[in-house]
Amino acid sequence: MADAERPAPAESPSDPHLFERRIGGTTLLSGGFLEVRRDEVLLPDGSPATREYIQHSGAVAVVPLLDDGRLVLVRQYRYPVAKVLLEWPAGKRDPGEALLDCAMRELQEETGYTASEWAYGGEIHNAAAYSSESIWIWFARGLVAGPPRPDHGEFVETVLLSEAELDAIANRDALPDVKTLIGLHWLQRWRAGTRPLAWLSAAQAAAL
Amino acid sequence: MADAERPAPAESPSDPHLFERRIGGTTLLSGGFLEVRRDEVLLPDGSPATREYIQHSGAVAVVPLLDDGRLVLVRQYRYPVAKVLLEWPAGKRDPGEALLDCAMRELQEETGYTASEWAYGGEIHNAAAYSSESIWIWFARGLVAGPPRPDHGEFVETVLLSEAELDAIANRDALPDVKTLIGLHWLQRWRAGTRPLAWLSAAQAAAL
Repeated sequence: MADAERPAPAESPSDPHLFERRIGGTTLLSGGFLEVRRDEVLLPDGSPATREYIQHSGAVAVVPLLDDGRLVLVRQYRYPVAKVLLEWPAGKRDPGEALLDCAMRELQEETGYTASEWAYGGEIHNAAAYSSESIWIWFARGLVAGPPRPDHGEFVETVLLSEAELDAIANRDALPDVKTLIGLHWLQRWRAGTRPLAWLSAAQAAAL
Repeated sequence: MADAERPAPAESPSDPHLFERRIGGTTLLSGGFLEVRRDEVLLPDGSPATREYIQHSGAVAVVPLLDDGRLVLVRQYRYPVAKVLLEWPAGKRDPGEALLDCAMRELQEETGYTASEWAYGGEIHNAAAYSSESIWIWFARGLVAGPPRPDHGEFVETVLLSEAELDAIANRDALPDVKTLIGLHWLQRWRAGTRPLAWLSAAQAAAL
């Protein structure tokens, strides 16, 4: 039974000895915030198994670089871990939304900033054992401040930090959010000349 | 209504303006692989909201360093993202299991290696918007090879790579797994002398 929403196993075409093949499945939970699936699969040796996972539309995180060298981050209470986390502005992609549109929207909603230049950083999988989520990391510069427009029920505060300040926070293990650690690392690599970024004007990027 | 399994909001005691307070909740899904909760909360402004999330016992990942400088990784098919991912040996904590016991168990089950020295790396949150999961990263050295003991239905292959090879894979965006990117980054920092690790013998570490 095919599932149009599931990607074909596209990577590592030489790995059929590891692939699991979907033969059926049901939706365990939907209509609220989380959509949970249970699929029946065949393991590489042909034996049956089940796989439960979150079907996720993906998320975007933005590393926003102010002209004065500071970075724009947000702090918010993350209920599942019962902690206030320091993070890049980020959010879930709306169904069918283009990645850059999502990045621009989340940056403006959470912090008020708009950006004149954008560069795509890369894709990460944050919970591949039980979630289909990808987080696509973008970099933004040429920032102009404006009023934040948080979603109803979203309490987020903007924080401006230098790269050295954020690095110090990471080094004292007070930056546990994975996308924020990885975005900072990629930023440092870009500054060091070892990870290129292809900057585009907002108009160029939107036309891609 | 208190929930003994939920930690109190321990971090950032100066942040009550961001806290969300639990007033009730139900379990939406349990008994299989995933446990899903829906809690009723009061937002910082006192208005009600619901939070759906995975209740997760946490996981451990191990960065295993061979005496010859190579690293021990695993490749496995991750069904939710339909990709074979290259990762540090890792796995979910059994209920009540000590972190180091979990690290030792997963390293041996997935790769067969045992280690004579261990160092704790740090804690990350990989999906704080919808999962209570922590991943605790450990470093292991003094490795001795042995037979892997995979769980039933677990198809995992061990890969030995130099640090330069793994770094090259990360730089061509073929290392999307977050714990693996972060563990590699911390390893590089440790080698560079900018992130200390406190190494303990396996016996010392187990007595902690």
